[in-house]
Amino acid sequence: MTETRQQAERARKAFLKLSTGVDRTAVLNEIASALRSGAAGIFEANKRDLDSAKASGIAEPLYKRLVFNEAKLRDVVSGIEQIAGMDDPVGRVVAETELDEGLILKKVQAPIGVLAMIYESRPDAGPQIASLAIRSGNAVLLKGGREAANTNAAIGEIIRRVLSKHGVEDAVQLISTREEIAELLKMDDLISLVIPRGSNEMVRSIQQSTKIPVLGHADGVCHVYVDEFADTEKAARIAVDAKAQYPAVCNAAETLLVHSRFAGREQVLEALRKAGVELRDSEFGSEYLDLIMNVKIVDSLDEAISHIHKYGSAHTDAIVTENKQNAQRFLNEVDSAGVYWNASTRFADGFRYGFGAEVGVSTNKTHARGPVGVEGLLIYKYQLIGDGHIVASYTGENARPFLHRKLR
Amino acid sequence: MTETRQQAERARKAFLKLSTGVDRTAVLNEIASALRSGAAGIFEANKRDLDSAKASGIAEPLYKRLVFNEAKLRDVVSGIEQIAGMDDPVGRVVAETELDEGLILKKVQAPIGVLAMIYESRPDAGPQIASLAIRSGNAVLLKGGREAANTNAAIGEIIRRVLSKHGVEDAVQLISTREEIAELLKMDDLISLVIPRGSNEMVRSIQQSTKIPVLGHADGVCHVYVDEFADTEKAARIAVDAKAQYPAVCNAAETLLVHSRFAGREQVLEALRKAGVELRDSEFGSEYLDLIMNVKIVDSLDEAISHIHKYGSAHTDAIVTENKQNAQRFLNEVDSAGVYWNASTRFADGFRYGFGAEVGVSTNKTHARGPVGVEGLLIYKYQLIGDGHIVASYTGENARPFLHRKLR
Repeated sequence: MTETRQQAERARKAFLKLSTGVDRTAVLNEIASALRSGAAGIFEANKRDLDSAKASGIAEPLYKRLVFNEAKLRDVVSGIEQIAGMDDPVGRVVAETELDEGLILKKVQAPIGVLAMIYESRPDAGPQIASLAIRSGNAVLLKGGREAANTNAAIGEIIRRVLSKHGVEDAVQLISTREEIAELLKMDDLISLVIPRGSNEMVRSIQQSTKIPVLGHADGVCHVYVDEFADTEKAARIAVDAKAQYPAVCNAAETLLVHSRFAGREQVLEALRKAGVELRDSEFGSEYLDLIMNVKIVDSLDEAISHIHKYGSAHTDAIVTENKQNAQRFLNEVDSAGVYWNASTRFADGFRYGFGAEVGVSTNKTHARGPVGVEGLLIYKYQLIGDGHIVASYTGENARPFLHRKLR
Repeated sequence: MTETRQQAERARKAFLKLSTGVDRTAVLNEIASALRSGAAGIFEANKRDLDSAKASGIAEPLYKRLVFNEAKLRDVVSGIEQIAGMDDPVGRVVAETELDEGLILKKVQAPIGVLAMIYESRPDAGPQIASLAIRSGNAVLLKGGREAANTNAAIGEIIRRVLSKHGVEDAVQLISTREEIAELLKMDDLISLVIPRGSNEMVRSIQQSTKIPVLGHADGVCHVYVDEFADTEKAARIAVDAKAQYPAVCNAAETLLVHSRFAGREQVLEALRKAGVELRDSEFGSEYLDLIMNVKIVDSLDEAISHIHKYGSAHTDAIVTENKQNAQRFLNEVDSAGVYWNASTRFADGFRYGFGAEVGVSTNKTHARGPVGVEGLLIYKYQLIGDGHIVASYTGENARPFLHRKLR
């Protein structure tokens, strides 16, 4: 048996214990304080990663994302404390039905099992995901980027020491070599969910090469549609924010759709140009991740919706309008994870949604959609409690009827 | 473009209309009455299928499942009426948060898209699935077995006529040749969920050959664990029901685990033998689907749980005990879709759970688990309603804080 498979088997065992026999809130609070008191060691490890990165001539934005400093630590720790403060979701009864006298069916929240998280560069993603996993009772195998190896190892060691005190040291494990990704993706008997976070190519390649459910998204082709009845000032403000506030991320808009009868078109385009945006009118469906935006004139709300369905990635799309009926149609009819009215697409984010942290944004149509926090890492199980009840009593000639009385 | 792909594209269009612009309750009620008034035609078509089946020497149980008679029609119609009577789930706001003044985030139930249902033999499955799909706003491509082709076509034509009056005739479509399954499974850009219902081999082969999420289960290896503190009479009754009441189904038990200190062991085994059950003590993990049961003596609750995790299929497992603590541990620790205390595993079924109908039972750890009704065919979308809100206001030096006030 390979070492990665052994790790996954140990994770499965740790999951069974973590999900039932451990005070997960205590674990999370201890991790937060251990990270704080271990800060010096983490920064020291991070310095080694940064030095190698600089030596290898890494690009500036990647270098920035690799930095793990006091500010990043503070965000990570306060995120973990926030997650620790949430009600424990495991075991929560979400529905309850009296099937018959003395026969109670409960739908109970439950963790998923062993998760595999594959991420690049940003070392703060590791402890965030780990704490979301612990809160939801899941074990997680973390495969970070090689460039952050020292930082990830230092953080992983601190988390592991805390887990160890609670007898679940294998609930969070680092996977360290690149080859192991292919192996992880084959273990559909042990791993229940894969969460990739990185470039479009990386996510797509993972989606194409595993039978395990993959949570996430490859492309983020978001639209801002400026309706005939838009307020010009709001349209300009939202278009500029959606495109230029931080263009390198998935929830930044790539295309501006403008109704042909919208009177403020020139003001909006001028605002974008002033913000440094290059405007084009082709290559719809491209994700520029840069200060480039497609502009298309449409003759109706229907045309805008059709364009979004044809070229979009069902991530997040916004309408700017003062017409409530058009807004409502857009919100109902656009089949995307996020549909916004008079707000920037950049709000599509677990922190902004109030989840405390996120494992990423999903464009899946099953399980979890949009920004995914703790809830997206949970499933349920059905508990049925009887007193010797058998199905034979409910079938045939003298079948007892079911009550099916909703208790909750 | 192939014909199957054209069908899927038409289904996608019909989905967008069905999910937003159609009175789904009216459609369902009209289908129920159209099926009732079209009964003669369906029975006539079914007779042709039954004649061919008899001529080809089909096995008795398969022949029985192929029958679509007055009783089956009554069940189907009353099932559809029950589904029509449910509150429309599409658009229901399941959570609502005030992110900031005037910025409201709603989590709204939404359909998934185009479903593909692949099923064998039982022609009553078609209209059941179709009505669950319509209730949840999804389009569905139905691929039934060749042996039921005439019956499926007659039912499909009736449903299509009703849908046509509402402008969504392509929301339910039959796929008719065998080759088209392979094609369907490749269309991950159009089809969002595949639901196979049939033999283990059929389900497994579909799971292995598509990137589309598959809802369902291959094996159903269910256990009954008779604890040290079990009531003998309840143990015998539950064991017999779980194994012998209808052995050919996935929720029938395959293995009886008995605590070595349970005093009533012989009475329980004798009751099983009397019910015609052959007892074995090997081949754990086999799904017999017949009057054969494995028996294993275990020395502890832990050993029983470990056995279930090792050999089970995480479908449905039961404990028989009068000891509340042991029961609670079993319900918490056994990682199966259904965990039962003093009740037969045979209750694992959408009708018995009160869902009105089911598309099947899922052993997945994501999206939907256990018997799946309308809820399992839904996802959600996030609607964000602002008044010109942009992310720039919430970042940097003078960042506004979020409120994150739960409204619902």
